[in-house]
Amino acid sequence: MSKLLMFEKPVGMRDTLPHIYETRRKLKEAAEQEMRSWGYRFIETPALEYHETVGDASAILDRQLFKLLDQQGNTLVLRPDMTAPIARVAASKLLKERIPLRLAYSASVYRAQQREGGRAAEFEQIGVELIGDNTMSADAEVIALLVSVMRKSGLENFRISLGHIRFIDELFRQILGTEERSEQLRRFLYEKNYVGYREHITGLPLSSIDKQRLLQFLNLSGGIDCLDEAIKLVEGSAGSAALNELKTVYDRLKEYNVDQYVTFDLPLVSHMSYYTGLVFEVYADGVGAPVGNGGRYDNLLGKFGQPAGATGFGLRVDFLLEALEQLEEEEGIHCILFSNERRVEAIEEAQKRRADGEYVLLQDVAGVKDVDTFTQTSKNVTFFVGKSSNGGNV
Amino acid sequence: MSKLLMFEKPVGMRDTLPHIYETRRKLKEAAEQEMRSWGYRFIETPALEYHETVGDASAILDRQLFKLLDQQGNTLVLRPDMTAPIARVAASKLLKERIPLRLAYSASVYRAQQREGGRAAEFEQIGVELIGDNTMSADAEVIALLVSVMRKSGLENFRISLGHIRFIDELFRQILGTEERSEQLRRFLYEKNYVGYREHITGLPLSSIDKQRLLQFLNLSGGIDCLDEAIKLVEGSAGSAALNELKTVYDRLKEYNVDQYVTFDLPLVSHMSYYTGLVFEVYADGVGAPVGNGGRYDNLLGKFGQPAGATGFGLRVDFLLEALEQLEEEEGIHCILFSNERRVEAIEEAQKRRADGEYVLLQDVAGVKDVDTFTQTSKNVTFFVGKSSNGGNV
Repeated sequence: MSKLLMFEKPVGMRDTLPHIYETRRKLKEAAEQEMRSWGYRFIETPALEYHETVGDASAILDRQLFKLLDQQGNTLVLRPDMTAPIARVAASKLLKERIPLRLAYSASVYRAQQREGGRAAEFEQIGVELIGDNTMSADAEVIALLVSVMRKSGLENFRISLGHIRFIDELFRQILGTEERSEQLRRFLYEKNYVGYREHITGLPLSSIDKQRLLQFLNLSGGIDCLDEAIKLVEGSAGSAALNELKTVYDRLKEYNVDQYVTFDLPLVSHMSYYTGLVFEVYADGVGAPVGNGGRYDNLLGKFGQPAGATGFGLRVDFLLEALEQLEEEEGIHCILFSNERRVEAIEEAQKRRADGEYVLLQDVAGVKDVDTFTQTSKNVTFFVGKSSNGGNV
Repeated sequence: MSKLLMFEKPVGMRDTLPHIYETRRKLKEAAEQEMRSWGYRFIETPALEYHETVGDASAILDRQLFKLLDQQGNTLVLRPDMTAPIARVAASKLLKERIPLRLAYSASVYRAQQREGGRAAEFEQIGVELIGDNTMSADAEVIALLVSVMRKSGLENFRISLGHIRFIDELFRQILGTEERSEQLRRFLYEKNYVGYREHITGLPLSSIDKQRLLQFLNLSGGIDCLDEAIKLVEGSAGSAALNELKTVYDRLKEYNVDQYVTFDLPLVSHMSYYTGLVFEVYADGVGAPVGNGGRYDNLLGKFGQPAGATGFGLRVDFLLEALEQLEEEEGIHCILFSNERRVEAIEEAQKRRADGEYVLLQDVAGVKDVDTFTQTSKNVTFFVGKSSNGGNV
């Protein structure tokens, strides 16, 4: 192979070396165990799906999809998220079994990156979907579980921002009238481009009062009080119903004793079209992007022929690791070096220590060029070398 | 989307539903823990690699590779195995750190299938690589670890067949002379097409004694005695050196007390060109194909610019699951149903039980259409419904 590419990986692809691997494993195990203990059951779906099935239903932009042709000429995609594949499985198999349905996943997803810039093209997501339950209890449960998963993962310094898509839709409809104009403004919010949003409003043919409403809306974040401000900006029942849902869910999160992690962010638009109600993002100290997000998506299951409401969240494992202040200490390895004459003793010693739960590496000295380098990261070293029958600890 | 493809998956792709997921998880955890306890450290590599880097070095046929183009026009492949990616990481990063190097992996690999026929196009492999140790101790260690991993995974009824590539090479060289003729015969062995092998020999321009040698070779399987038969078929030291290696490794496996799992199969050719010494396959009762294989491959690391001997094994998790006689029992879920009035009590009860290690599902009755169907797979059901303050167990 060419020297140039010998050690190279495709754009956005990464290796995970042992120390980070172990830290990540422990984080995932803790998170997954918490999901299980709330009655969520894990499933797995294939890495490759038909573009027509899951690519279309996915919330991810088409240009971010890794596509390939199979031998029958169908377009396949590497799954860009887990929600659409889970909707496929739920609709085809599981929804007949038990409704509501609580499912969980822990899997890699794939999003093509245009150029190298630190953005991962493959990353692990861990999350849950609660399908077929339209109550506020379901919305509250996934957020309470999210808090619990974060804490079990070793994170305490995080906050969850809540918003509501129907409040935004209603406010924009009342002021802007057309879906096209709303869409433009929603895109600024989606991109978190608040400067662009403000500029854009200046140029709109609106009364100064309406412009003021759209600008005030941008400030609706913080504690529960911002809901009282929000109610002044919309007329009629649709907007206030959305705000009432936020209030209700917040009250229930108090019952779970997790309201201290929750703030409001009414301009929150996590996706251009996917969500249909309550939405949220999770931020952790020290990480520049949301470590996770979620919300209610009541239209997806219908695309698979089984209309059902659903809510859920997904967390990015790589960002959670970034938020952890330090890596887990690796399990110390006890190193036993032996020469031929004392091999049997060495094997027995290794097996005994392993049975006691130790991590024991057994190494023939004939296979080692530099014993000092070899043993320098070991917790302990025992030699079974030469003719003596007593192992020497170093 | 079209009705036709709505629930379809690409050829060879599968969903894993909760019950199998949990059984597989426990099997993998047990296997991985055993690898760690022998001092192996886990790494992960990307699902996508450059074809030029890893596709070329891989032991898998080109037509089995899933290929795609990245946005820079490079050909990428979904990793068809883990050995080549691990060799890339070892050569580029880890071999500077510690030699010999013990690495482990647990990952999905991808092999395109021509048509639907039960063959998986995506499956999980779990395995180890011991790099930079050319001693017989290394060969013995990976086989002893393999036995230990199988047993910790809950399997007892399996056997490991041992062969040696250099014995076959030497025998064929002595009798057939040309590499081309040897290659033809090796292919019959690789395909386990013994009828074809016999037929092919009949037509070769060889003495009847030499034909007899090639046919007798085919019978060299079973206990340690077959090594005594084998030595009669080859002249000179190269063939007998290979047989001595087999004998030595077998003796060391006795020291590990795992020789009862080992038989010999001298016509074993696990791959056309990959292995360079001892090779083995693992068979489990009830599974028609090998559940795993491995051996010594001393030429791969050199392709990444760091010549070093290596040995290792890989197990197919799907085949191990097939070999398990029964699925693990799923953890029972305690189901708590509540109505609004008693929500707080229900949440408290759920949190208390979860803290005690129970799996507890909490469900608002307003979200359930059919309570009987919903609760029928639950271990226990508690109702917090109506005005009373006592939960009712059913």
